[in-house]
Amino acid sequence: MIRYPNGRTYQKAEINHTKQKGNHIYSNRGMTLEDDLNETNSYYLDRSIAVVHKKPTPIQIVNVNYPKRSAAVIKEAYFKQASTTDYNGVYKGKYLDFEAKETKNKTSFPLQNFHNHQIEHMSNVVKQNGICFVILMFSSLEEVYLYEAYHLLKWWDDMKKGGRKSIPKKSIEQDGHLIELGFQPRIPYLKVVDELYF
Amino acid sequence: MIRYPNGRTYQKAEINHTKQKGNHIYSNRGMTLEDDLNETNSYYLDRSIAVVHKKPTPIQIVNVNYPKRSAAVIKEAYFKQASTTDYNGVYKGKYLDFEAKETKNKTSFPLQNFHNHQIEHMSNVVKQNGICFVILMFSSLEEVYLYEAYHLLKWWDDMKKGGRKSIPKKSIEQDGHLIELGFQPRIPYLKVVDELYF
Repeated sequence: MIRYPNGRTYQKAEINHTKQKGNHIYSNRGMTLEDDLNETNSYYLDRSIAVVHKKPTPIQIVNVNYPKRSAAVIKEAYFKQASTTDYNGVYKGKYLDFEAKETKNKTSFPLQNFHNHQIEHMSNVVKQNGICFVILMFSSLEEVYLYEAYHLLKWWDDMKKGGRKSIPKKSIEQDGHLIELGFQPRIPYLKVVDELYF
Repeated sequence: MIRYPNGRTYQKAEINHTKQKGNHIYSNRGMTLEDDLNETNSYYLDRSIAVVHKKPTPIQIVNVNYPKRSAAVIKEAYFKQASTTDYNGVYKGKYLDFEAKETKNKTSFPLQNFHNHQIEHMSNVVKQNGICFVILMFSSLEEVYLYEAYHLLKWWDDMKKGGRKSIPKKSIEQDGHLIELGFQPRIPYLKVVDELYF
């Protein structure tokens, strides 16, 4: 059995590839942005730095079998669109909420990566004074930015009024915050949160 | 078609009954504690009072069909144990986290309603200064209490050391906070949160 330095088996990473259709793998590490964020959140959790979890994928269950003497089996179900962002939790008492997306583009970030429900949720969180942002990865460039939700909301509004359908990378460089990638944790986004909010 | 005053059809409530095995229905309204909390959270969300959502049930997906020209169908999946509580969100910038449970008992609340992962999560949230509690319903008595997590954590620790396996109702009455049930919202738990934290 082949293992990565972190103990993850080669096989497990392979399964992740096929499962995460449309999720691009960056830098040939066999790891997705989601994997890296999960590891980052585990790092924060283990050290009592923050409690942030990815929400389960919402599923519409249609048919379940309850066999005797074994676990219930879902026999028919469908993926539902999430009504919120994927990640939320608590950091120093404050509410933290974010979505993570990646693009292969090099000069802009397409807004089609987000959907209406997520945008609406972020807008609600901002109104409640939650800390709300997106983590934007330019996978071809290996650059990851923390970009506060209120910037994204402006671009989204603009698009709805007929404006452009992507955020120019220059704007993300200017208004966003480059996250220096590390080994442990891989995507230390709380460093930026500290600078911005504490 | 028979409808409840809120527009919910009788049939739909029936489906909820069978779906929520082991969840007792209180006061013959055909509504579960979960239904009432979802309506309460919708009420808060619609009025920009708070953003609180129930997390989706975590599912382990084993087999998915991707038919041409129609939505992906999950053909085999299993229920996973949640690693967190069911509800979280933001209220006035603060992180809010809770679990809701009900019992038919009249004199105590059985601790077996909770599992280790949830307790551990609540303990982590308390350490991060999040607002963390459980909503305990005595369905036979139609009484609902907000009971702060740190009380529950003490009883849990006690049980692990061989202590009693339920919380006496008297303790819940003394340390917890009775939520006066209403029509809109049905379970106005933020009133208690206001008194305790703001």
